[in-house]
Amino acid sequence: MDPLSKSSEDSVVVMTELVLPNDTNVFGNLMGGRLMYWMDIAAALAAMKHCSSPVVTASVDNISFENPIRLGNVVHIEARVSRAFNTSMEVHLKVWGEDAVKQHRYNSNQAYYTFVALNPDRKPQPVPAVHPKTEEEIKLYDGALRRRQLRLILGGKMQPEEATELKAFFNR
Amino acid sequence: MDPLSKSSEDSVVVMTELVLPNDTNVFGNLMGGRLMYWMDIAAALAAMKHCSSPVVTASVDNISFENPIRLGNVVHIEARVSRAFNTSMEVHLKVWGEDAVKQHRYNSNQAYYTFVALNPDRKPQPVPAVHPKTEEEIKLYDGALRRRQLRLILGGKMQPEEATELKAFFNR
Amino acid sequence: MDPLSKSSEDSVVVMTELVLPNDTNVFGNLMGGRLMYWMDIAAALAAMKHCSSPVVTASVDNISFENPIRLGNVVHIEARVSRAFNTSMEVHLKVWGEDAVKQHRYNSNQAYYTFVALNPDRKPQPVPAVHPKTEEEIKLYDGALRRRQLRLILGGKMQPEEATELKAFFNR
Amino acid sequence: MDPLSKSSEDSVVVMTELVLPNDTNVFGNLMGGRLMYWMDIAAALAAMKHCSSPVVTASVDNISFENPIRLGNVVHIEARVSRAFNTSMEVHLKVWGEDAVKQHRYNSNQAYYTFVALNPDRKPQPVPAVHPKTEEEIKLYDGALRRRQLRLILGGKMQPEEATELKAFFNR
Amino acid sequence: MDPLSKSSEDSVVVMTELVLPNDTNVFGNLMGGRLMYWMDIAAALAAMKHCSSPVVTASVDNISFENPIRLGNVVHIEARVSRAFNTSMEVHLKVWGEDAVKQHRYNSNQAYYTFVALNPDRKPQPVPAVHPKTEEEIKLYDGALRRRQLRLILGGKMQPEEATELKAFFNR
Amino acid sequence: MDPLSKSSEDSVVVMTELVLPNDTNVFGNLMGGRLMYWMDIAAALAAMKHCSSPVVTASVDNISFENPIRLGNVVHIEARVSRAFNTSMEVHLKVWGEDAVKQHRYNSNQAYYTFVALNPDRKPQPVPAVHPKTEEEIKLYDGALRRRQLRLILGGKMQPEEATELKAFFNR
Repeated sequence: MDPLSKSSEDSVVVMTELVLPNDTNVFGNLMGGRLMYWMDIAAALAAMKHCSSPVVTASVDNISFENPIRLGNVVHIEARVSRAFNTSMEVHLKVWGEDAVKQHRYNSNQAYYTFVALNPDRKPQPVPAVHPKTEEEIKLYDGALRRRQLRLILGGKMQPEEATELKAFFNR
Repeated sequence: MDPLSKSSEDSVVVMTELVLPNDTNVFGNLMGGRLMYWMDIAAALAAMKHCSSPVVTASVDNISFENPIRLGNVVHIEARVSRAFNTSMEVHLKVWGEDAVKQHRYNSNQAYYTFVALNPDRKPQPVPAVHPKTEEEIKLYDGALRRRQLRLILGGKMQPEEATELKAFFNR
Repeated sequence: MDPLSKSSEDSVVVMTELVLPNDTNVFGNLMGGRLMYWMDIAAALAAMKHCSSPVVTASVDNISFENPIRLGNVVHIEARVSRAFNTSMEVHLKVWGEDAVKQHRYNSNQAYYTFVALNPDRKPQPVPAVHPKTEEEIKLYDGALRRRQLRLILGGKMQPEEATELKAFFNR
Repeated sequence: MDPLSKSSEDSVVVMTELVLPNDTNVFGNLMGGRLMYWMDIAAALAAMKHCSSPVVTASVDNISFENPIRLGNVVHIEARVSRAFNTSMEVHLKVWGEDAVKQHRYNSNQAYYTFVALNPDRKPQPVPAVHPKTEEEIKLYDGALRRRQLRLILGGKMQPEEATELKAFFNR
Repeated sequence: MDPLSKSSEDSVVVMTELVLPNDTNVFGNLMGGRLMYWMDIAAALAAMKHCSSPVVTASVDNISFENPIRLGNVVHIEARVSRAFNTSMEVHLKVWGEDAVKQHRYNSNQAYYTFVALNPDRKPQPVPAVHPKTEEEIKLYDGALRRRQLRLILGGKMQPEEATELKAFFNR
Repeated sequence: MDPLSKSSEDSVVVMTELVLPNDTNVFGNLMGGRLMYWMDIAAALAAMKHCSSPVVTASVDNISFENPIRLGNVVHIEARVSRAFNTSMEVHLKVWGEDAVKQHRYNSNQAYYTFVALNPDRKPQPVPAVHPKTEEEIKLYDGALRRRQLRLILGGKMQPEEATELKAFFNR
């Protein structure tokens, strides 16, 4: 284990927001774009905690919205760095809604945002490795390689046939 | 101990915000009013968690701002219900700033907001008692009576000579 | 009377705001935090008018919200410097709501915000004394000493037994 | 004089705003569109004070921006109803900027907004006449007829040759 | 034709906005001031496209709002430079609303905003001439002279008797 | 060809936004989350144009941000429905930045958002098929099937081995 690596737990950021009228669509539900805005900030803060430098959003993975979050309900976002790749970090986000009056919590989505660490000259700079501890963290860490190959293919930076991890996944 | 009482821990709300340009004054520091806005929402969410009904802000105690929070830094707010009084709840808030790049945390302020629980007819309704557990929670719980007398006096709803807890404090 | 002192009237700032949907809670009433944000700006402008330099919010006294202000109603804020203490100024605020259609005005709250004047190096700098004229201004000026002792005690910067003005108030 | 008429003074609304970063263009000056937004709200409040019913913006006259208002400076807006025409009201606005640190005030612009009063069915409803008192109010009242003809012509609702007041103005 | 002139078509900017709760008045209709804010940005972008330098709003002509735009409806703004005058540009705007569900479009207003091009020292600088092509562009181009005289008179920079184009319009 | 199908062109929405200070990170570049917010609104409007009913965001595909968009620059978003699947629609977005002063345009990203059409009871309802016309539209239409399988797998609603289109892609 790299002595400079940091645990995934060290980067956890918890964000809590209240859904106000301007955040909602005609059905009185939180708009997806507004939620992605909050997720971006929570994820960026987790990445900054991990690498101690400013970061910029490099990419966002597939996000599926499960349950609508209602006007007046609470949005909970928990972000943590799941794995680092040289100068970039994958951040895992869990999002859930809460009706505080009914004391009811419900899933909204899970997502992965990727950030690049920048030095004062705005050039990418190396970040510490991630040392996962819990079972969930290890699972996120292991899956990160496959997700990275998918990002590279979808971004046109890798050929599908080179993505060995991903091919194994589809041909299992 | 009242079987319906709830622990102070159950109502904890953690809020994390990033200081953006429009939140700052000419010195590039977070404006006090913007911070009080976030504190109000965090405290209201803690109160709602405690009483499972909508709440309205009744009063805010003296707040002293210790250190300015810088543009681009992170604001952390931790709110918990410290004591309940029939239909109202006192919420204790701890606020600190963080420079994520320098990995430096610093105090901003502590505060007490008071909320009233409302039923669907917008009338005050009883809330569960608070059962403090940790040493800090017990200290907050005990001080709440004195702060309440101060609020009642400052709000013109109690005569100074009736405030026995408070008089003892000044004449100790 | 100090020839450099300024009247309380010279610093008056009048602010008028309309309550929009995003300013309101689930009851359609102005959120306390949003109102404290506007009050902070109005009070800061009054303090700047008095001292002709940038200011930062140092503290906020106990605020009690009397009547809710409705969506679509108007918020009126009147701020004026009530007393100066070397490098700081206490600003008194009166806030009321107005239903323009029903031509009905109602009290919301009164409050005291304290600001510190800063020079270009961000160090506190002396401010002019306040010379109160009207009966109300004199009353505000006289009470400011007692409120200051309370702020210092609550901020942990004065022992209760030293607060002579305040002790007299509780033991009258 | 119509016993139901109201003075122009009765409708005065004073608004004070602070120019924040998001209100400014690349030169650090208040954007014209942001100022027109504030002016619209101030003018609507003045119109509502005059007619005691909700109002909608019908038109805005030519506005010339004289001096830029700087980031961190204060915007002062003073609005008053200058004349009423059956179901509509012309509101006169004076706007100036202020550098609170340098204690310097400067003109920004003058403008006329026109509003229509609506009843609960959203239909136009009659408004009280305006009774001007000061010399300035009388001048604004007298010029309102000419401005109204100009609005009607520019809105395609009057032929230029019918605008007797306006023709006299150009042929004087 | 000036070889440096640009076509009106080259400066076209199309803006699309969704009416959210905070943009609306008590009737659930878009507030005039919010619309003027969007129009100012769309017009400024068209002017910048034409002159390749930063611009500031100099004036806004008479605007009449025809149909209210509803909450949840779409606002369409089309801006193009209609004529240039040395260092300033007149921008023509067409604004319409759309109910996307009912597939219904309706006029809101037409307007003219005027911008001045600034060099890095914030001084006005010459802009290219406009070369109108379509019938509509030629009509806008020709009318611009008359509108400019009206702006100069209303801004107190020209005497009514000097406005030859405008006098002919009223005496036709 | 389904007589009820609509062309991809019919749903095109063009959105233009100006990057303001509060939209930027510490480097003065547009934050990814703010851009995703605008993209969500543009894509929702395109989906509504296609299906003539309200829509909600169901999912967002992988987004890679290529070039940062600077403060004061312009954001252009072009959205069009690329394919419909019973009650859902895939919307393709092209995003580019523009420095209006330097007359320089640069790519930011491409993305796919998926929306579900809802009837007044908030239940999914069928949408018209898409009839692609241009070469680019046909390419987007054909790729939509493969992207849909990827979304279903990533959302846990399809087994990798069932994704025949996608398997062929990785094993080509």
